Amino acid sequence: MPESSDVGVLEDAAYREAVVDLLAAIAYGEISAFERLAEDAKLAPTLSDKLAVARMACHEFAHVELLQSRIEELGADPYAAMAPFQTALDQFHEHTAPSDWYEGLVKAYVGDGLAADFYREIAAYLDPRTRDVVIASLADSGHSAFVIDRVQAAIAENPRLSGRLALWGRRLMGEALTQAQRVAGERDALSALLAGGVDRPALDLAAIGRMFARITELHAERMTKLGLDA
Amino acid sequence: MPESSDVGVLEDAAYREAVVDLLAAIAYGEISAFERLAEDAKLAPTLSDKLAVARMACHEFAHVELLQSRIEELGADPYAAMAPFQTALDQFHEHTAPSDWYEGLVKAYVGDGLAADFYREIAAYLDPRTRDVVIASLADSGHSAFVIDRVQAAIAENPRLSGRLALWGRRLMGEALTQAQRVAGERDALSALLAGGVDRPALDLAAIGRMFARITELHAERMTKLGLDA
Repeated sequence: MPESSDVGVLEDAAYREAVVDLLAAIAYGEISAFERLAEDAKLAPTLSDKLAVARMACHEFAHVELLQSRIEELGADPYAAMAPFQTALDQFHEHTAPSDWYEGLVKAYVGDGLAADFYREIAAYLDPRTRDVVIASLADSGHSAFVIDRVQAAIAENPRLSGRLALWGRRLMGEALTQAQRVAGERDALSALLAGGVDRPALDLAAIGRMFARITELHAERMTKLGLDA
Repeated sequence: MPESSDVGVLEDAAYREAVVDLLAAIAYGEISAFERLAEDAKLAPTLSDKLAVARMACHEFAHVELLQSRIEELGADPYAAMAPFQTALDQFHEHTAPSDWYEGLVKAYVGDGLAADFYREIAAYLDPRTRDVVIASLADSGHSAFVIDRVQAAIAENPRLSGRLALWGRRLMGEALTQAQRVAGERDALSALLAGGVDRPALDLAAIGRMFARITELHAERMTKLGLDA
């Protein structure tokens, strides 16, 4: 999308509403990721592992301010904007509370990865300034390497762990889809974003299908990197 | 202390050991502050309050890396160095688990303030480079203002709260002293730091007395700012 269409698109109230929704969903996602990671840090077997997870938690949280400012620039109140997403995200976390350190690690990597892939796909349909904010808020900064290292080492030591964690990965994917569908059903503006509008390309059903195929494939790649069956 | 004495002082093994102890105690203190604040964030009455406390948590955590690097520069392993302080700090937090949002806020402000005052006093006896690291790790960046605002407003609305929170402040002070004494008893190098050494000024008993008088006074000032009797 060329820079020049930026202002035009933002004058479209439906588009602006959808973008605020999207930014708010990502922001609340990062807040709840912060909370869960801070909780998971307690399960860490060593102080060094605890610090690594606490660092991940703060890294997620650091993005919130960026998203908040963009929501304010678009004339909305960030807290009011986030409220509609609390239930879905809180329920995702409630339904996927890790029962041990390794489930927590897999969840941090697989869950964040899924969310990031999904938002990156949507980012392609956004005005440039919002797209930059979204992409910046999804930066990983090497946390994946930590999780992969720890999970692979644990599986090498205890091969039976891989069956349990593979099931866990599938459950995370299932829960994420369930909650995403719930949000799509409740937030019309957000869903309409993918259907396009004046000045904006639409996603037809085939394109949506391809998008989900890409997300599923990237999920499978992550599971493979962990040494797990997708 | 002039810059030139920096190297000389660091060649003193007892001094180095004491400095590593001090940096490790501060670092573990910031880690456990992070954990407790992340926990307290759950008690927040609004999303905006939750974010304010999560921001405080990450702010504390951000200092850990600086302290870790200085410990490594001094040739020690940061995790091994922190281990001796876990019990005292964990017990401090166990004995002062806030029973509600306001106790959490008062604890964050009063507890951090006490620790910062104490470390700032000790910093005067350190080599310049270490002193800079310690001072940087104690920066507040406006969180106090948030706590003062919220606690004053709550007391204005419910004056009976002030009696309970005043008692709470005294208990925090008592627990902090108990654990500080415990650490002083266990860590000879750290205690010896205050007793001076070659090239370093010593604190006599009168000076230690004055130091505690200053710390107590600053504590009372904080309680007053909150609208509480010290």
